[in-house]
Amino acid sequence: MAEKLLLSALVNNHAGVLLRVAGLFSRRGFNISSLTVCETENPKFSRMTIVSEAEPNTFRQIEQQLLKLEDVIKVIRLKDEKYVSSELLLVKVRAENKDRPAVLQTISKYGARVKDIGHLTITSELTGIPSIIDEFVKELEAHTIIELTRSGVTALESGDISINDDID
Amino acid sequence: MAEKLLLSALVNNHAGVLLRVAGLFSRRGFNISSLTVCETENPKFSRMTIVSEAEPNTFRQIEQQLLKLEDVIKVIRLKDEKYVSSELLLVKVRAENKDRPAVLQTISKYGARVKDIGHLTITSELTGIPSIIDEFVKELEAHTIIELTRSGVTALESGDISINDDID
Repeated sequence: MAEKLLLSALVNNHAGVLLRVAGLFSRRGFNISSLTVCETENPKFSRMTIVSEAEPNTFRQIEQQLLKLEDVIKVIRLKDEKYVSSELLLVKVRAENKDRPAVLQTISKYGARVKDIGHLTITSELTGIPSIIDEFVKELEAHTIIELTRSGVTALESGDISINDDID
Repeated sequence: MAEKLLLSALVNNHAGVLLRVAGLFSRRGFNISSLTVCETENPKFSRMTIVSEAEPNTFRQIEQQLLKLEDVIKVIRLKDEKYVSSELLLVKVRAENKDRPAVLQTISKYGARVKDIGHLTITSELTGIPSIIDEFVKELEAHTIIELTRSGVTALESGDISINDDID
């Protein structure tokens, strides 16, 4: 049965590396649930965080094939709760005057932040682990979700270790 | 001179769409500063947020070419401050005992949250607009950054409108 695979990759900040990574996943039929890529503290490198659903017996293969791609420098698998992970949600829900107190109560219950108030809607932001984001979204469904966007998961290993260890 | 282009795209939740988008940017030599892709409230669709640096006279072209790709349903350009945007940072900095108070003070100054404490490091999380994230990272450089990861920008239009308007 498919399970969640969470990978963090250090890549050269070159056009084309995203194409290679997306190509590998597409070619092999590995699903991507979320992907984030952004520049890092070092302008030479970008860092990708990929969440995939895959058969556990393919995990090692995915990791190794990623590492073989041009411009992919290091790949780590985040597992066994030995990592810190977080995701960002922006969500716009219908909130006419009469519904506002209930919407604001849900927002406040989850420690979300109001980012914009329209005539008929409230947009809020929540940072947290994916399961908390899912719960918040589920609770907001009672108020009609107009649109939402999630950043996808980003993550670092716990403790003092770094993806930059042993990298020039 | 290159300027920042912020695009949000609603896409079919199919393997291959990320490959097409990455291919377009790579082929045309359009740089991608950050990209996030994640599933939405509707399991049929994913949503991508792309930040690119490009010549303003190519903005319209990029938008149109994206829209022509298979599985890309809608593309909106977020501009003129008529949007809500946010980014998520996880950052691990060196923090030996003597440095902890100073590190924690910086974390607290920015309203960041401590996520993990190692023997020699502190990992914290900050959500905010990219310029605030940049400022926080810059201030943490005084303490040696061990590693960091950013989700990339995610964004929604302000007000009551939605990328789902006029979509079946």
